[in-house]
Amino acid sequence: MEWKVLGPRCYGIPLRRTSRRSRPSFCTWTELGHGTFIRGLETTATYDPETEEFVLHSPTLTSYKWWAGGLGKTANHCVVLAQMSTKGKCYGIHPFIVQIRDLETHMPLPGIKVGELGPRMGYNTADNGFLAFDHHRIPRQHMLMKNAQVEKDGTYVKAARHEKLTYGTMVFVRVTLVHDAAFNLAKAVTIAVRYSAVRRQSQPKPDEPEPQILDYPTQQHKLFIHIATSHALVLTGEWLWRTFTAVLADMKKGNVNNLPELHALSSCLKAVSTSDSALGIEECRYACGGHGYMMSSNLPSIYSYVVATRIYEGDYTVLLLQTARFLVKAWEQAQAGKQLTPTVAYFSQALKNGKETWDGSAESIIKSFQRIAAGKVSACVNNIKEHIKSGMSYEDAWLKTTVQLVAAAEAHCRTLICSVYWEEVTRLTASSSPNVKIVMTQLSMIYLVYWALRMTGDLLRYTSISEKDLDDLQRKYEELLTLIRPNAVGLVDAFDIRDEILRSSLGSYDGRVYERLVEETTRTPLNAEPVNQSFHTYLKPLMQGKL
Amino acid sequence: MEWKVLGPRCYGIPLRRTSRRSRPSFCTWTELGHGTFIRGLETTATYDPETEEFVLHSPTLTSYKWWAGGLGKTANHCVVLAQMSTKGKCYGIHPFIVQIRDLETHMPLPGIKVGELGPRMGYNTADNGFLAFDHHRIPRQHMLMKNAQVEKDGTYVKAARHEKLTYGTMVFVRVTLVHDAAFNLAKAVTIAVRYSAVRRQSQPKPDEPEPQILDYPTQQHKLFIHIATSHALVLTGEWLWRTFTAVLADMKKGNVNNLPELHALSSCLKAVSTSDSALGIEECRYACGGHGYMMSSNLPSIYSYVVATRIYEGDYTVLLLQTARFLVKAWEQAQAGKQLTPTVAYFSQALKNGKETWDGSAESIIKSFQRIAAGKVSACVNNIKEHIKSGMSYEDAWLKTTVQLVAAAEAHCRTLICSVYWEEVTRLTASSSPNVKIVMTQLSMIYLVYWALRMTGDLLRYTSISEKDLDDLQRKYEELLTLIRPNAVGLVDAFDIRDEILRSSLGSYDGRVYERLVEETTRTPLNAEPVNQSFHTYLKPLMQGKL
Repeated sequence: MEWKVLGPRCYGIPLRRTSRRSRPSFCTWTELGHGTFIRGLETTATYDPETEEFVLHSPTLTSYKWWAGGLGKTANHCVVLAQMSTKGKCYGIHPFIVQIRDLETHMPLPGIKVGELGPRMGYNTADNGFLAFDHHRIPRQHMLMKNAQVEKDGTYVKAARHEKLTYGTMVFVRVTLVHDAAFNLAKAVTIAVRYSAVRRQSQPKPDEPEPQILDYPTQQHKLFIHIATSHALVLTGEWLWRTFTAVLADMKKGNVNNLPELHALSSCLKAVSTSDSALGIEECRYACGGHGYMMSSNLPSIYSYVVATRIYEGDYTVLLLQTARFLVKAWEQAQAGKQLTPTVAYFSQALKNGKETWDGSAESIIKSFQRIAAGKVSACVNNIKEHIKSGMSYEDAWLKTTVQLVAAAEAHCRTLICSVYWEEVTRLTASSSPNVKIVMTQLSMIYLVYWALRMTGDLLRYTSISEKDLDDLQRKYEELLTLIRPNAVGLVDAFDIRDEILRSSLGSYDGRVYERLVEETTRTPLNAEPVNQSFHTYLKPLMQGKL
Repeated sequence: MEWKVLGPRCYGIPLRRTSRRSRPSFCTWTELGHGTFIRGLETTATYDPETEEFVLHSPTLTSYKWWAGGLGKTANHCVVLAQMSTKGKCYGIHPFIVQIRDLETHMPLPGIKVGELGPRMGYNTADNGFLAFDHHRIPRQHMLMKNAQVEKDGTYVKAARHEKLTYGTMVFVRVTLVHDAAFNLAKAVTIAVRYSAVRRQSQPKPDEPEPQILDYPTQQHKLFIHIATSHALVLTGEWLWRTFTAVLADMKKGNVNNLPELHALSSCLKAVSTSDSALGIEECRYACGGHGYMMSSNLPSIYSYVVATRIYEGDYTVLLLQTARFLVKAWEQAQAGKQLTPTVAYFSQALKNGKETWDGSAESIIKSFQRIAAGKVSACVNNIKEHIKSGMSYEDAWLKTTVQLVAAAEAHCRTLICSVYWEEVTRLTASSSPNVKIVMTQLSMIYLVYWALRMTGDLLRYTSISEKDLDDLQRKYEELLTLIRPNAVGLVDAFDIRDEILRSSLGSYDGRVYERLVEETTRTPLNAEPVNQSFHTYLKPLMQGKL
């Protein structure tokens, strides 16, 4: 069937990657009191040249290492980031490999306090742990010295390679998180679309049978955008991956010029993709009504998994502000007439033109989004300048502008996703069958129109769009819902996610929703006996007035 | 301290009501296949005049009663809604009181299948259950016959009282849900604001200590709106309560004229308050970073509790469409020059004027919101008319407009909350101390400005607002964040929610966040022993290559 080749697979891109869940992560960076601010970490590693050892120590409660997955009850070794001092001087954060448990007995080594964090919203099988040191000694060689080094006598040798190199891993992880966001949203929307094709409700027309709820435009409005978003994020993730490998190749040759742009890209794409995905998964769950609240729908677990990624490996707001830093610099370069890197090249155009001319095409929507993002960055730059004029320090002026800076970075990121998605669909479907091309184009178009309708205030400010154009856009959106409806089930089937992966009573391929929900009731221990012990212990005495 | 009288308590309104959790609810309405569409329920109750009994039966899997709290393992009796037939004719849904378990042994009675649903996202202590009948007989008198009746010989006597009366209970429950939404959001924002006053992070200025994260405008942006929203919902809930009791008094006199407006009000307020509260609670959780993901923060549980209320007792979308029905009728009445009920009286004004004149005051914002809501309802009415002109049935034209109808109902509801909040604050602080009045006014003002900034597209369409006005509005918003900052902790303390109710490692009154997080690690069974059995069973054999 043609459906089988639809979805991201039709672009020749595998939707699934190894989930992060399967990779044990024993690197302990975060502490109880510090996550974002790495310079603020408190764990110390003090070099003792007498014994050629580092002394690891947790001077405060807030210096406890916190969150590392697999650390709580499993790991024998971990990489610890600590403030390294030698010869009385602190050189900042350095990594150390530390054995924490006896290999034979698994008991924590002397001077080490380690355990599990307690129940979490999700990831409860990951034994996320804490770790504290009481003057725990490790050999000098256990400092990871590929870059910076400490010699036997305690002499510090600075890293020969660029410090920014350490960000490489972080960028890699962020790239995989964009893919994770896409894949999990695809799972959720598969469940919700299939359920909506089985579920029937209400009778909008007398004497006609109850329609599939997927036929309701409000349901289509809740769901179809997330099919499109999954595609958009997969394609943007792939594109980010190619950008990453290109920059990595450059870096290996010693050229780190493109690292700031890559960092800005990976930051905002990680932030926006995980946020879109988490919100989207919840909307898919809402679309399944009460049944989406059952754990057996798997939607609550998918949500609690993805919503964690909104925060770890760089919090949403913090990452967008990092991108904003890059955008403000780029805007100032544009104003100075300098050549800009590809993803912000549109700034130069925005500087020249006033309002963007609106014609409702995909290209026009993308150009309008670029104009909006540039407008927002420009407003931030002006805001900062005004605050400085009124006597503020640059730092204070920046802080005062952060609410708008976050919005500007988000607008830039949305622009980026829209343009990459549209360009990639155009490129990848160039040789597809006409029908595939039509459906893929409808899907990418609804993504653009959806976001345009979410940004009408910005469109009215920064483009020539008229009130009639806005009405046309709304109508176009509703037409696209109708056009996509017949292909909706095919589109989620084309994600080709096996039932064993979906693990959902509502979303299995065979559509046996109600049968599965009833079968699930036989699995809960509460139903193992018709009358639970609790009746005899509590209820009966209560009814007899004995409690 | 003056703080103690701030918050909703300063209006003399108790924030806490009996939570629904504490009221066992054994009414089984919802079935596996039907929730929203009551006419679609499949359980049958057929009268047998021979024995003067009703025969309860579940003819299909989808007719299983589903969700009722306390039913799974606890209840002995429940009220069952079923399609009642007598003398060969079905008269629709009627209520029956049914004994389901033996009072002595607690065993399900013959012909009754009952059990627990299995794990859910929340409410796992509520033993939500399912119930199915196999030709189970109950005495005729067990039909609840206060209204409609079935006589011994099977003659059906129609309800003497107005059918709409049955909606009374539903409205009552919705009113309490608005209060629940406010209270739980107040809990979440108390936790997040207190945590943000303890947590310090980053160093925006060299050589200065790490600031409390509550000092960051992005954090204030995430949190302060939810303090205001809690107040807005409490005051709107109280106002709805007064409206409800007035309409109830009228109804007892036989006057049901105001019931449609009350129904429309309670529908949209239930939908919007539970949605705002759930989204707000998640934002509060985000604001606590990784620690908000710990169950011990209590934020995940508060979220999973409130997000359920978005769906039960009337799904978000369904309820807004019910309000939309009322709004469309009211708009047509306004066009016909008829007198309108109070909450839609603004329609008449909107019909007369073109764009609303903007001056940035609270009154102007409220009038603008009214103009927007009226504009959206008007656009829906026109849209329906156009579809009908092009040959569609009214039902199809309505369906095609539902995406916009939901948005129109939401805009109406927002308008309502804003105007009630502002008017109530003005009224209730008329005799307050000047300082209390200032703070309460700032808080209600930030609510109005926040929503105005979320609706810039609508403001540009329906009011005279200029681009400069929009910039001023953004500046005003940021100024309000700064003004509210010094009072933020006092404002959440004024909610006066005891630590035992908050149950949060992050939000306790004494601010001992890190101490509590570490204490919590001693409570998880995983930490009961330094080495778990799983090491000997799995890990060690794996390490030795034996697994």
